[in-house]
Formats: sequence, structure tokens, C-alpha cells
Amino acid sequence: MQLYTSQKLQVHNSLSGKKEVFTPLNEGHVGMYVCGPTVYSNVHLGNCRTFMSFDMIYRYLKHLGYKVRYVRNITDAGHLEDEGEQEDKISKKARLEQLEPMEVVQRYTVDFHQILEKFNFLPPSIEPTATGHIIEQIEIIKDILEKGYAYEMNGSVYFDVSKFNKKYTYGKLSGRKLEDMITNTRDLAAQDEKRNPQDFALWKKAEPQHIMRWPSPWGDGFPGWHLECTAMSTKYLGETFDIHGGGMDLKFPHHEAEIAQAEASYGHSPVRYWLHTNMLTLNGKKMAKSTGNNILPNEIFSGQNDILSKAYSPSAVRFFMMQAHYSSILDLSDDALAASEKGYLKLMEAMNQLADLPTGKTTDFDITSWKQECYKAMNDDFNTPVLIAQLFEAVRQTNLIHDSQASISQEDKEELIQSMSVFVYEILGLENNQDMGQDRDTLSGLVDLLIEIRNSARANKDFATSDKIRDDLANLGVQLKDGKEGTSFSIK
Amino acid sequence: MQLYTSQKLQVHNSLSGKKEVFTPLNEGHVGMYVCGPTVYSNVHLGNCRTFMSFDMIYRYLKHLGYKVRYVRNITDAGHLEDEGEQEDKISKKARLEQLEPMEVVQRYTVDFHQILEKFNFLPPSIEPTATGHIIEQIEIIKDILEKGYAYEMNGSVYFDVSKFNKKYTYGKLSGRKLEDMITNTRDLAAQDEKRNPQDFALWKKAEPQHIMRWPSPWGDGFPGWHLECTAMSTKYLGETFDIHGGGMDLKFPHHEAEIAQAEASYGHSPVRYWLHTNMLTLNGKKMAKSTGNNILPNEIFSGQNDILSKAYSPSAVRFFMMQAHYSSILDLSDDALAASEKGYLKLMEAMNQLADLPTGKTTDFDITSWKQECYKAMNDDFNTPVLIAQLFEAVRQTNLIHDSQASISQEDKEELIQSMSVFVYEILGLENNQDMGQDRDTLSGLVDLLIEIRNSARANKDFATSDKIRDDLANLGVQLKDGKEGTSFSIK
Repeated sequence: MQLYTSQKLQVHNSLSGKKEVFTPLNEGHVGMYVCGPTVYSNVHLGNCRTFMSFDMIYRYLKHLGYKVRYVRNITDAGHLEDEGEQEDKISKKARLEQLEPMEVVQRYTVDFHQILEKFNFLPPSIEPTATGHIIEQIEIIKDILEKGYAYEMNGSVYFDVSKFNKKYTYGKLSGRKLEDMITNTRDLAAQDEKRNPQDFALWKKAEPQHIMRWPSPWGDGFPGWHLECTAMSTKYLGETFDIHGGGMDLKFPHHEAEIAQAEASYGHSPVRYWLHTNMLTLNGKKMAKSTGNNILPNEIFSGQNDILSKAYSPSAVRFFMMQAHYSSILDLSDDALAASEKGYLKLMEAMNQLADLPTGKTTDFDITSWKQECYKAMNDDFNTPVLIAQLFEAVRQTNLIHDSQASISQEDKEELIQSMSVFVYEILGLENNQDMGQDRDTLSGLVDLLIEIRNSARANKDFATSDKIRDDLANLGVQLKDGKEGTSFSIK
Repeated sequence: MQLYTSQKLQVHNSLSGKKEVFTPLNEGHVGMYVCGPTVYSNVHLGNCRTFMSFDMIYRYLKHLGYKVRYVRNITDAGHLEDEGEQEDKISKKARLEQLEPMEVVQRYTVDFHQILEKFNFLPPSIEPTATGHIIEQIEIIKDILEKGYAYEMNGSVYFDVSKFNKKYTYGKLSGRKLEDMITNTRDLAAQDEKRNPQDFALWKKAEPQHIMRWPSPWGDGFPGWHLECTAMSTKYLGETFDIHGGGMDLKFPHHEAEIAQAEASYGHSPVRYWLHTNMLTLNGKKMAKSTGNNILPNEIFSGQNDILSKAYSPSAVRFFMMQAHYSSILDLSDDALAASEKGYLKLMEAMNQLADLPTGKTTDFDITSWKQECYKAMNDDFNTPVLIAQLFEAVRQTNLIHDSQASISQEDKEELIQSMSVFVYEILGLENNQDMGQDRDTLSGLVDLLIEIRNSARANKDFATSDKIRDDLANLGVQLKDGKEGTSFSIK
């Protein structure tokens, strides 16, 4: 591992409730599993925040030199809305839309990938699907049954939480106690084939009308939702791995069930560091389709929505999300996005000007300690808002240098350019002037030509023309800046 | 179905060797299966041509009003380089690159999707994976064993071609005869556990070092390559479906094996119309990595290659491919691409000018019969080169109208705009000025400003300035065209 600072990487482990020094199981390698989307509808913006946080974490771990195997699954079967239901989310959607379930899966997997690409996510190392691991799930169920922590009932198999809780502790991640859960649950035993309401399905029997089904030792059926993550994380990362991430709402019952399944089957806890992201609210309230307090990523990018005053680019939204710590609640609003967009554009403008920064003999800015502060922020549980504050400190310094109020040496300038690029593009994953390759060049050429014509006009004292050019350019979003070394421009 | 012309859609069926009227199994619905890529390397340009042909066919069938379920698989396991080998293509790559096989799969699936998106492919309805259908494959093997057309040998299961050939006909798609194959094969029986060299694997035993493996009734192993397509086409399209497509090189043994597997299991042929695409050569020779006569899609788009003189956009390449019939050999060369690019740009320029076409009281151009010719071309086995010739006939007509040498009525103009848009964008899948949203507007604004300044200069007889503007714009790829109604421009 490259050591950029004396302070070691610390992460907040939800299991201990504390920040802990991050020490991977195998030196130099990190195994990370993140619960991906259930692909039965367009990806939720709150989920995007979760995946973006882990994208940033993945980027940072790679930057530190770790060889990271990052597994993020696609749930394409088995996600029951609640344990009592007979139909999973995808089958239900397929029935409502008169599609084959895998057509539903394809439609929303494509949507998911398109949105993530717009947000400039790195693809995970492996993106396994639940339906691609039915055999592995059946094998684990057989094992848990054999070890006595599950029981079969009418073609379904349930995890026996009470039995498990005698040897292990159910609820340790979410801080719940099984006794309290039992006390607080209405007695559903009469209408439920489970022994206890806390038990959860490992395998559900498929009713004759059920379209997603696979043969198993217990008859045709489909796996319970919690099981797929145990099967896939074990297959690709081993029985114990470093980081398991997901949204906070998955702590219970999903992640709790994952721990129970792994402990029941392998006899030990599967995950060393549990990381959970916090909620994204919209105008101060929970996002929910049912209340209309909801917005899709594409609605933000296109501006076609009733909630925001204008369109915001994926990079502006990414910057907005990175301005909050992943474990804090973040509220999205028009004002907040507009403020972030301003900050994002300011940062990009500074990035564009770095190369032209004049150099001197000395540097008035302590690059080394500034870099230390940046790494300190990231090593403190991936504190991106503090990192971004440091980036703006660098922007402030470059503006001083630009205005000849401070100086930077050639060597330090190169170091600064290199570091800014690492933090802004590589780690935060922001993009500069996206969608603008060839056109940007033509655009610059056109503006340069206009500047040339304006200069001639000024030389000829034709101020009507020179002013017209400046004003018309401003209307097109092109700002001219006259300086000692000629005229430069920025495009909004 | 919408009837655009009296001529019915005909397709060349490789099984009969004839053009046949296309009549789907279920009226109004089409089931289409296309063999997708084996994701162990960057997608081959020749494969892109195959998938592009079926993308066009998918688009046209949808345009005709069919509800199309288009299944294109991802082969992520089981593709043996030849029957004698113990290791499939993905496992081999994983071993060479020291990656988990599913990391190889992910890397090249992402590449595949990115290239196809650049080419403006529509996603298929379902994109199933071989590893996602191991259970379904095992079920078919059990069935074929039960019916006596397969045998188990040391933990592997082989399809018994000789036995099959007694009741059915092996080789009818590729026109081969089993007796000839037997005569022409060296006797490998000594080093082979198969009864006959023509037999092919349904299930292969995994050696201890083999990393991709699943439990089965015959021990740990993995499915043979041919089987996945039978399993997935049956699952999503039924035991008989309308169209099966793929590259010509898959006719034997892959598609022949698919027919045999389906006939052995279901007792009847699985596919009504077999469609095969032809080869893409490069500078007159077969493309092959080993000889260096090879080019990747991204190398064409970026211009970073030793074969072509410049970069070509995905749309120009798409246009190039659409200019040949899918069943003809197509040779890619710098000259051919340059010519196609010219044609593509000419077509796009015409598309951009359609809205500004002046209208008159009459139309000198028989839009109805022109449309008929377009549909006639497409209905004649998707004859895109003939369609494109018709599109250029329309371009010729619009140029005449533009130059006031011919006339078009408002109604016919709208009809023409609508039809051109359907053929060019919807059916051929070409894109106009992609990657150019916001910037394009700024760009147009800048050019408009320059035209305005140039007009003032000309009015003031300042020809030095007006000429400079025209020349500098030309250097930036912006062509000015002075006409009766002012100056217009086109951007290269």
C-alpha cells in the first residue's frame, strides 16, 4: 500500500458502532460486497446515492493501491415485498405489465446501467445476479438444514431464528433483541406456516400460477431474498470478507439475515466491516412515489419535473452528493442543487485554469501539508465534504497566484495539478465538460476567432462591434476576460 | 400488422436455402433468438456486424407493428475452444490474467455494452446468461439422456449423433452428411472418451483445477456450449419460435447441435426461420488477431490504429455496414469507410435541411410510390442497400426542390419528413450529430454571430474581414453557404 499520510484509513463499522482502523484480511487485497438494486422499476435516487458512496470508496481504495474485488449484485428474483406475500417484486411487475419477468429485469437493468454511466460510476469487478446463482443458494439451504437452523414446511424452507439465537446472537448489527421482537409482534402464527414470525424464508414454494420457478429438493420454488447475497458474496469473496455495504434501511432484516445465514452455515461472522449509507430526502421529506415527493435521476438531468427550477447535470448532482458524508442524511432541494452546481462549476473553472497558472521562484502555499489534509479527510471514514473544503482552499490559492498576489514554483504547480486531478477526477469521480470532445475544440476555435475580430475592432476604435461581440458572447454563456496576457474566456 | 405495401415480408431461410414469406407462429408476435458474444475478449467488429444486422431486423419488425421478444444471450461459461479441450474460453482467460472468471465476464460484458451503445443498438428484450441457466441446461440433459440420445462417460455427458441420425437428420442446416463427416475425420477414438468424434458435449466433468463448476447428477462440471442456446431459447421463446439468427460461422456445429438437441428433447425442429449474416473482411482478408489484420471498434472511433487514415464515427461505420446486405461478404477498408462517411454526412445534411424545404402548390415527386419502393426493399429480406439508394433518390429530389427546380406541397413535405425520419433513424438506427446537445446550441449561436459580423463587413466592403471569417470557419470545419434567403452553414 502506498502511504500518503501517517494517519491510517479508519472506517465506521456499523457492527461495533465505532470507527476502526481498516485492516484487510489479505494484505494488499480488499473484498467488498454491496447490495445492488432490485430491478423492477427505475433506479431510485436514494439508491444512486448509496452506490455512488461505494463507487467513491472503491475509487479511493484502488487509489491507495489495494487490489479490490468489488461485487455489486443485481436482484432479479426473490425479493418478496414482505414475508407473507407469495409473489416477488419482479413477478408482480411482470404480471401487471404483461411481460416475461426477465423482460422486466432487462428493462430496468439497462436503465440502472445507463443512469450509473451518466453519473460516471466505475463498473464493479463482478455484477452477479440472483437467478444466476440458484444452485449455490440451494447448496447453502441444504447446509443450513443439515446444521439444524432451518426447517421445511409445505415445500418452503424457513430459517429458524429462535434456534439460531440459542447459539448465536440474532440482531447484533441492528441492535435489536429477539425477545423484544417477539413481544412486539402480533401473533401471526394462525395464518402463517412459519414457526415464529421472526423466521424468514430461504426457499419459497412456487404456486402453480407463479412464473419464476426452479426445481429444488423441496419442489419447484424460488429462493428467499436474503439468501442470494450470502451465496454470491461467499462465491466471489469467500466465507469471510472485508467490507459489506448497503443502505441503512437494509440493516434489518436483510443484513441481519445475511449474518445469521453465514453463521449458521460456516460457524462464523462473514463480514469484518459493515458500512451503511444514510438516507436522501427531498425537500425535507422522505422520498416516496406514493406521496409524489419523488424524483428520478433522468428527470433531474432533463429538467422535466415539477420539483426543481431547472436541469442539473449528473456531475453537478454527483458533486452535491459528495458534499455530504455518506453516513449523514442528505436533503435534496432546488436551492441546495443550485448552490452545488455553482461550486462544481467554480471547481471546474479552476481545474481548467491550472495549466495556465504563472510560475515563480517560490511557493507561498504549503502543497505538502495541503495534500496531507486531503488524505487525512479521506482516511477519516471517507470524509468527502472535508476533502472538498480542502479542494476549495487550493482553488483560493490558485486564484491568488492567478492575480499575482501569490507565487508557485514550476515543480509545485505540477504537483498541484497532479493532486487536484487525482482528488477531483479519480477519487470523487467528477467529470469536466462531459459530452464535449470534438465540439469543444470547434467551440474554442470559434471564440478565438471572435476574440481576434474584437481585437481588430478595438484597434480600429470600432467599439460598437467590439462591445456587440462581448455582449452577444455573454448571452451565449461565453465570458471574456481581458488580462495582461490577452483575452481568455470561460464557457458556462 | 400495419401493411405498408402489398408485398409481404420475405426472409431468406438458411434451412430451406430459399426466400420465404415470413409468417410468425403467433399472429402479431415474433420470437427472435440471436447467439450473443462469448465475453472473454473485446467484442469483434465482425460480431458487431452480425448484431447490427439483427438490431436493424428487430427495429424493422417492431416498426411493422410486431410485438417482438428479442433474446440475445451472453455466453459466460462453457465455450470450449474445441471439443477435445478441458478448459473453456473464459476459464482460460481468467487463468492467464489471474482473475476470477466472473471478473473476465464483467470486463468484457461492459465493453460489449459500451460498444453497442455507441453504435446505437436497441437493447434486446432479454439478455440471458449461460451461468444463469445451469439448472435449465441440466434439466434438458436429463431429458435427452432419458430419451436415449446421450450417454454418460466418466462424469461427462455426450450427445449421441449417430443414434440421433437414425431417426432425425443431422446436418440439414449446414448441408453436411454424417457419413461424409465420419469418412473425413481422423480416428480420435483412442484419445477421446466420446463414442464418435462427431458427438458433442452436453456436460463436461470439471477437473479438480477447473474453477467454473456446478454440481449436477453426473458430478461437478459445466455445460457444453451448444446447450445454453437451446435452454434459453426454449425458456423465453418456447419449444418452437420464429427467428434464430447468428453469424454464418455458427451454422456448424453450433446451430446444427441446437437443432439436434431440440429435436432429441422435444421431438421437433425448434426454429421456423434461420437467418445467417455474412463475414466482414478487412482489406480483402479475413480478420484475425494472429495475423494483425484486425481492428477493434474503439480503434476505429478514436483513429488510433495502423490500418485507417483517420477516425470514423460509430454512425459512419453503421451506415457503412447498412450499405451492404446482411448476407453478403463486406470488406472494410479506408477507402470504403471514407466513401460511406461522405454518404452518411450527405444524408444527414439533407435530413437537417428537410424542415426548411420551401413548399409550393404541387409536388413533382411521387412520395407514395417512393415509400412503396422503400418498403419493398425492406420486405425483400431486409435489403438495406436498396433502401439507402431510395433514400438518396429522396435526397436528390429535395436538392431539386431546394434549388427551386422542383416543387413539393406542404402535405407531401410533412409526409417526406416523417418517412425519412422513420427509415433513417428508426429503422437504420443512424444518429444525427450525436454527443452534441447544449454545445451544439452554443456553437450555432457563435456561427450565427460570425455570419452577422461577416455580413456587416461585406456591407462595409471590408472584404478582408469577410473572407477571413469564411476561411477561418472553413478551417474549423464550418462551411458557409450563401443563398437567396441569407447564409446558412453546415458543420463537418
